[in-house]
Amino acid sequence: MQPNIQVIHVDVAIIGTGTAGMGAYREAKKHTDNILLIEGGTYGTTCAKVGCMPSKLLIAAADAAHHASKTELFGVYVDTVNVNGKEVMKRIQSERNRFVSFVLESVQGFEESHKIIGFAKFQDEHTLLIDDHTQVIAKRIVIATGSRPDYPEFLTAAGNRLLTNDSLFELNDLPKSIAVFGPGVIGLELGQALSRLGVMVKVFGRSGSVANLQDDEMRHYAEQTFNEEFYFDAKARVISTIEKENGVEVIYFNKVGKKVTELFQYVLAATGRKANVDQLGLENTSIVLDEKDSPIFDELTLQTSVDHIFVAGDANNTLTLLHEAADDGKVAGSNAGSYPVIAQGQRRAPLSVVFTEPQVASVGLSLKEVKNHYSGQKDSAYVVGQVSFEEQGRSRVIGKNKGMLKIYADKYSGNFLGGEMFGPAAEHIGHLLAWARQQEMTIQKMLTMPFYHPVIEEGLRTALRDTQSQLSLEHNDIEEFIMTYDNVIQLVV
Amino acid sequence: MQPNIQVIHVDVAIIGTGTAGMGAYREAKKHTDNILLIEGGTYGTTCAKVGCMPSKLLIAAADAAHHASKTELFGVYVDTVNVNGKEVMKRIQSERNRFVSFVLESVQGFEESHKIIGFAKFQDEHTLLIDDHTQVIAKRIVIATGSRPDYPEFLTAAGNRLLTNDSLFELNDLPKSIAVFGPGVIGLELGQALSRLGVMVKVFGRSGSVANLQDDEMRHYAEQTFNEEFYFDAKARVISTIEKENGVEVIYFNKVGKKVTELFQYVLAATGRKANVDQLGLENTSIVLDEKDSPIFDELTLQTSVDHIFVAGDANNTLTLLHEAADDGKVAGSNAGSYPVIAQGQRRAPLSVVFTEPQVASVGLSLKEVKNHYSGQKDSAYVVGQVSFEEQGRSRVIGKNKGMLKIYADKYSGNFLGGEMFGPAAEHIGHLLAWARQQEMTIQKMLTMPFYHPVIEEGLRTALRDTQSQLSLEHNDIEEFIMTYDNVIQLVV
Repeated sequence: MQPNIQVIHVDVAIIGTGTAGMGAYREAKKHTDNILLIEGGTYGTTCAKVGCMPSKLLIAAADAAHHASKTELFGVYVDTVNVNGKEVMKRIQSERNRFVSFVLESVQGFEESHKIIGFAKFQDEHTLLIDDHTQVIAKRIVIATGSRPDYPEFLTAAGNRLLTNDSLFELNDLPKSIAVFGPGVIGLELGQALSRLGVMVKVFGRSGSVANLQDDEMRHYAEQTFNEEFYFDAKARVISTIEKENGVEVIYFNKVGKKVTELFQYVLAATGRKANVDQLGLENTSIVLDEKDSPIFDELTLQTSVDHIFVAGDANNTLTLLHEAADDGKVAGSNAGSYPVIAQGQRRAPLSVVFTEPQVASVGLSLKEVKNHYSGQKDSAYVVGQVSFEEQGRSRVIGKNKGMLKIYADKYSGNFLGGEMFGPAAEHIGHLLAWARQQEMTIQKMLTMPFYHPVIEEGLRTALRDTQSQLSLEHNDIEEFIMTYDNVIQLVV
Repeated sequence: MQPNIQVIHVDVAIIGTGTAGMGAYREAKKHTDNILLIEGGTYGTTCAKVGCMPSKLLIAAADAAHHASKTELFGVYVDTVNVNGKEVMKRIQSERNRFVSFVLESVQGFEESHKIIGFAKFQDEHTLLIDDHTQVIAKRIVIATGSRPDYPEFLTAAGNRLLTNDSLFELNDLPKSIAVFGPGVIGLELGQALSRLGVMVKVFGRSGSVANLQDDEMRHYAEQTFNEEFYFDAKARVISTIEKENGVEVIYFNKVGKKVTELFQYVLAATGRKANVDQLGLENTSIVLDEKDSPIFDELTLQTSVDHIFVAGDANNTLTLLHEAADDGKVAGSNAGSYPVIAQGQRRAPLSVVFTEPQVASVGLSLKEVKNHYSGQKDSAYVVGQVSFEEQGRSRVIGKNKGMLKIYADKYSGNFLGGEMFGPAAEHIGHLLAWARQQEMTIQKMLTMPFYHPVIEEGLRTALRDTQSQLSLEHNDIEEFIMTYDNVIQLVV
């Protein structure tokens, strides 16, 4: 050990000050004050800096422009819609900075002696070297290092014209044209929004995947719907993306198999994210890694294979969602604080949303999980109910009658298992369904709940009724309104 | 009895073919085929013809015009927004007619022999005279005659320029100006929508009531917010409304007490609704009436004071809401069919929504009901938690950061009692809350549910956290994420 390195002994060391790290810090602090929070970059969360917030700000501008240009249906006419790209980017940046400032305020509120700046690397299972200036000897460690954009090798030839969500929001004007790679959450949210703001957008997928939709019919429906707004090939064959003086040249086969050479101002890589665990020196520990070189871990305790080391948030490479990262952080931090006593955190019902229009919501068990769960049984013991929003009353009234919703349920109990939606207000229907799922409601019970009129939730009711009609229940004559025959009053007339 | 009158003996007679009557018919039919459905006017429901549907269509056009003119915030500029009043009204009418046609199709599907046209009047408790052509002797009767607009005497002087929701949607162009009386659901929905479509609107209330909001702070906030768009005096002193050749002259005191004489093209009466029971000859029965001359009835069985006569839907003068009418009809029809065996229908958790912007949602117990319920207790045994939407993340992102939400809970159990909201997406938050209320969730339990990011539901979470912080629970240290310490794992290190 070099003589100029300071040595700190702590109960808990947390690597990373994002959503998961901050949550872990607050929980661990309830158990010990001998704690260190290590930040290798700059403070501020992925969500606020380059994720949820700037993307939703971009979408808000896109919706304003789009809806202003789609008023004729209602008898309302708009002359011209002018998008001021610089102002669009300026609002995104200033509001984004405001959200980041709240995060920075939180960090400022943490005790100074609990914070250190530097890149942490494991020397052994209890020792972290911070840059070259500090050695931390920690009884317990939480890895909350987050994730970064990940993209295939061929995109690197786009050079300086290759954007990710880390750099897109730093532009001071909207691009003229952009080729988006990856039709997942980020690619479709940003691709559609840029298109609605007048950017020439083409979205290229590879595997056929569309916004993570699992249902074939819904995936095709979504692909067609997006294609009404911008070029989108979910199974594209792209040959190369090469930086040129005046843009980036993309060579690809179009949908009819013709080879096309096209110049874009930028390329956006939205091809996935990678956990920031590859530079941590995990090879100096006995932590077992999965096939993506991320630590395997217990989903309920957040423990890695090394008992006193926990992994939380995007770093654990499962759902890169803010609310999951927040929960992760709290559980990992609590357990790191109370170790060797550890407990299982209760997970919330799965919910994910894509903020395109129509939106996508996925709740509870996915179709794949349902199929796996019931695969051993001789007949199909689950049912799928559905609704189309094309003729749904309120959706049609507001001119947003696009989409569908599918509901999965156990055929014999009516238990609500999960659902997938591509349609209007899916972020809200998604909450209603996720709460129902977490409370283990049956389809029958859900149908006794209030549905106002005229609302998009009535589309959900139609899907629930369709689901119920396929159930095999002991009491066949199920009604949405319950006549409580345990309270029968026999009258003498 | 006149010799040319036909006499029909039935098990069940249903007076009225609106939402409640049709529901009653379908349920009664499960018990008997000897049934008669009596329609005194034309087929079609209040909701489809003159209520929910045309009003939501008007609001959809208004929102399109309004949002097209409010894009600057996002860096998007619209030259001019032109509202074509004739086209606005045409879409409302054609879409309205489409919704009505679905109702008519349903009625066409009913057996011909079960339907009769004519105005029913009680001759005695088992006998109805239909116009002057038919005498119906019925073992059981369901009154489902709906409601009609009700307005104070002084408005009648507006003569032909007095509109109600029955006549407004028949106009073939938007009015130039309109004085709206009554700032309840209908008055504010239509008043704001007309204003957003360029109509000069003034809304006059009398009692101070605003969209039925009960919380003082929220009511004032709402009154101020609406006043940013149009003139609205919730406690107006209006002297007269008199039809003139070129309009209707309204004389009133303005907010600073100055007497104003102003000419409007129309007056809209939105001052309430009246059950259609005053022409039914109820005086020929022993049915007990309330102070509004509506039959008193059992909310769970829908029975009037005469055991075999039921009253459902708007006719029972409680909540004039479609989903309540539908439930009412089903319960009354089922009981009329199975009588003398009758049962209690289970009511859904109360939910009402006003489709203004911001929207209003009221769920569960009202503030008044909460106060009454806890009034006998020595200290305040309920708590009120709240959130403002002015700084709420997503609401601000989309430029809809106006409003507030209040949550009522039992202080010692944490039981969620009800809530009131004036804010963005209140129709959706309202469903989430109403489902929670019907399932008797506690605030603690609600906080363990998923909240996505960034969503308006996070505003609800803030209100729930504020509520929870005021609870007196035995286990003080409540967390939103549950560490299941029944699953504690003791490690030996």
